Amino acid sequence: MTIAVIKDVLAGKFAVGDTVTVRGWVRTRRDSKAGISFINIHDGTCFDAVQAVAPNTLSNYQNEVVRLTTGCSVVVTGTVAESAGQGQAFELQATDVEVIGWVEDPDTYPMAPKRHSMEYLREFAHLRPRTNITGAVTRVRHCLAQAVHRFFHERGFYWISTPIITTSDAEGAGELFRVSTLDLMNLPRTENGQVDFKEDFFGKEAFLTVSGQLNVETYACALSNVYTFGPTFRAENSNTSRHLAEFWMIEPEVAFADLNDMAALAEDMLKYVFRAVLEERADDMAFFAERIDKEAISRLQHVIDNDFVHMDYTDAVEILQKCGKTFNYPVSWGTDLQSEHERYLAEEHVGAPVILKNYPRDIKAFYMRQNDDGKTVAAMDVLAPGIGEIIGGSAREERLDLLDQRLEEMNLPKEEYSWYRDLRRYGTVPHAGFGLGFERLVAYVTGVQNIRDVIPFPRSPKNAEF
Amino acid sequence: MTIAVIKDVLAGKFAVGDTVTVRGWVRTRRDSKAGISFINIHDGTCFDAVQAVAPNTLSNYQNEVVRLTTGCSVVVTGTVAESAGQGQAFELQATDVEVIGWVEDPDTYPMAPKRHSMEYLREFAHLRPRTNITGAVTRVRHCLAQAVHRFFHERGFYWISTPIITTSDAEGAGELFRVSTLDLMNLPRTENGQVDFKEDFFGKEAFLTVSGQLNVETYACALSNVYTFGPTFRAENSNTSRHLAEFWMIEPEVAFADLNDMAALAEDMLKYVFRAVLEERADDMAFFAERIDKEAISRLQHVIDNDFVHMDYTDAVEILQKCGKTFNYPVSWGTDLQSEHERYLAEEHVGAPVILKNYPRDIKAFYMRQNDDGKTVAAMDVLAPGIGEIIGGSAREERLDLLDQRLEEMNLPKEEYSWYRDLRRYGTVPHAGFGLGFERLVAYVTGVQNIRDVIPFPRSPKNAEF
Repeated sequence: MTIAVIKDVLAGKFAVGDTVTVRGWVRTRRDSKAGISFINIHDGTCFDAVQAVAPNTLSNYQNEVVRLTTGCSVVVTGTVAESAGQGQAFELQATDVEVIGWVEDPDTYPMAPKRHSMEYLREFAHLRPRTNITGAVTRVRHCLAQAVHRFFHERGFYWISTPIITTSDAEGAGELFRVSTLDLMNLPRTENGQVDFKEDFFGKEAFLTVSGQLNVETYACALSNVYTFGPTFRAENSNTSRHLAEFWMIEPEVAFADLNDMAALAEDMLKYVFRAVLEERADDMAFFAERIDKEAISRLQHVIDNDFVHMDYTDAVEILQKCGKTFNYPVSWGTDLQSEHERYLAEEHVGAPVILKNYPRDIKAFYMRQNDDGKTVAAMDVLAPGIGEIIGGSAREERLDLLDQRLEEMNLPKEEYSWYRDLRRYGTVPHAGFGLGFERLVAYVTGVQNIRDVIPFPRSPKNAEF
Repeated sequence: MTIAVIKDVLAGKFAVGDTVTVRGWVRTRRDSKAGISFINIHDGTCFDAVQAVAPNTLSNYQNEVVRLTTGCSVVVTGTVAESAGQGQAFELQATDVEVIGWVEDPDTYPMAPKRHSMEYLREFAHLRPRTNITGAVTRVRHCLAQAVHRFFHERGFYWISTPIITTSDAEGAGELFRVSTLDLMNLPRTENGQVDFKEDFFGKEAFLTVSGQLNVETYACALSNVYTFGPTFRAENSNTSRHLAEFWMIEPEVAFADLNDMAALAEDMLKYVFRAVLEERADDMAFFAERIDKEAISRLQHVIDNDFVHMDYTDAVEILQKCGKTFNYPVSWGTDLQSEHERYLAEEHVGAPVILKNYPRDIKAFYMRQNDDGKTVAAMDVLAPGIGEIIGGSAREERLDLLDQRLEEMNLPKEEYSWYRDLRRYGTVPHAGFGLGFERLVAYVTGVQNIRDVIPFPRSPKNAEF
């Protein structure tokens, strides 16, 4: 018995006349008046299902084949034939249809073969992988993750698994999830009535990480080129299509690098992973372009084909102020740009990805490297047409005196950052990095509007089902 | 200016006489009586440091070069020359030595160039990446992670990021970390005085995952071949060299597969990643074989060269009972094997990796597939010489009635598993998978004894520093 994955059958890896066995789930079944059933079977190996043509001469035709419904699992053996129908080049002339698993009460099967809303599918996160859209998202997500790892590996970067549980807060201000094993009905107390975290699992108050950056800097300052790719967390009460409480981040960090090096790395990386997805997942991308967002493919091609435009924050503010467009939020030097401003710059003013650089010091994190102008820091955002900010990065302040000055100005306790300061006391080097939210990347690539639909099991306020 | 990574210089990618610039950290400096300094510089791109030969004719020779100490960061330009010394084929005749960062008080620099204990290095987890051993561990860890992703990708598996925060407990009995944003000083209460988790971020009590298996099964039952590679957690109060509170797991899951398919997949995967590390990280592996464990290389080669031996649990018990060896724990059918038993089987009885199969039902998890004998389940452990259990897996119970029977016997609430049961109600398929603790794999490959030394920032009871 030659077991075949459907991808290989459809790609013509078997000769017409070969007998193969495919295993998967029924997408649809249609019966002809002539006593033939056409069963579409998917196994997840590619977007398309294969059609198995089952004649009524099969011994279980009346008892089983004509009772097959969407979602049933089957093992079908047949001979490969050229397909008379449209769409596919090959089909199977079934000689045996074995039913492995029925669908209990097909009338109430939640994944019935019709168009479901994304909200509905989210309620069935355990069954939505069987749909066209979630299957396609999953394959594209996988392709992007692999391409990210490959991109960095080829450039000599090492993957560093920074800690998930931490006792520090990288941004100095995040909204944090506490991690604890304390018995809530019997909390230990200190003498002055506070919760005694000395009794907790880690001996102090611990949280889920919001970023691996500070940790991964320790590896960049020893191994030069490193990156993280792992989950991060925000306990923000944001019920938007762009926020998740749990999401995956990619954070490269490079020794002896400056902001322009990071801008180039970000551009190279995005182009690399977009090329990978257009080459490797043409089937799924065609589906997204047809059904979700007609620009899904052209948008990526546009990014690949164009140089990213570098622009100073200060120049951007001037452009926005002079452009004659009315924004909901006014623009002035010293304030953060809003999504409407970012999208205007990338989509209307430039028409290509824009890398905004050198932001006002006072709106940025303590670790960003101060520029000589005394007002700005070497920070950048990559703004992509159609989504806005997709990457944020900076050169890190490698000069101990200037780092300490910022810690003091921002009332951050130096003792808490002693290990981070050590990197500046012992062989400090200029270094820089950036962060990319992986789900925002997947949403951008697929055109799927809500970030909850591009991660297998989304976590958001009041929702950690499954 | 041609920037060169040290790996390329030592590998002869530049011609003798080429001028290149390397950037990194000083490992050692030695001055000759003739007024020449030999500076060993590492940049993390390979195990070895490159030697830069700095003559006293350099303008900053007296002021700076002879003051260089371990850990200082430098940018050195020089011409590539054949090395007269032993070990390396190439060195740099320095024409410029720029000091980027000094070491504050070299006498107290924690990473002074001498042999430190692993315990000592753990206290300086932010600086230990600069040591030979942590550098080598990091590169090998990276190589193994990449090889794992590549292995699965080449075989058509999709990477699935199963959730980190969950409201269910995969094993039905784990020791869990609670994830919460409740104010501990002001806990909301239900009418009967219990903590009201409806007020918590996720609207119910939430935990860190102990395994992605149950979640990833939902994707296997749609996309056929999938795997997880992500962090998992155990709130066990175990201070051993084999336990971490936070560690990374690899969990493939395959539709239409049985236990023997998983045994073959586990064998293929281990051999694949071992080959990768021997080929790609020969430099680091040579170090481990020389300094940490003289069998580091031969052990991997032995696994690669030998077929894994399959053995039934029942037969193993008989072998252990009859072998004439005295164990600390007695062996009897129906009890779990101890490490001493596993190691005897793999190291002494067989002398190769052993796959033990078909364990007593009553010592295994509810989801494992029941064998026809009514006593055992289709579970396996892969036992490797020198470490014992490295992989655990099973076929999953795909028959709803038998799954329900186990849930009832083990007093697990059916409602909690309704989504898991749905996979058996709608087109169920035989499927199987296994789990591999990534840090145990890295420890096995490197010979490093304590698992805390093969993860960047180990988390264990009373320890979540950095």
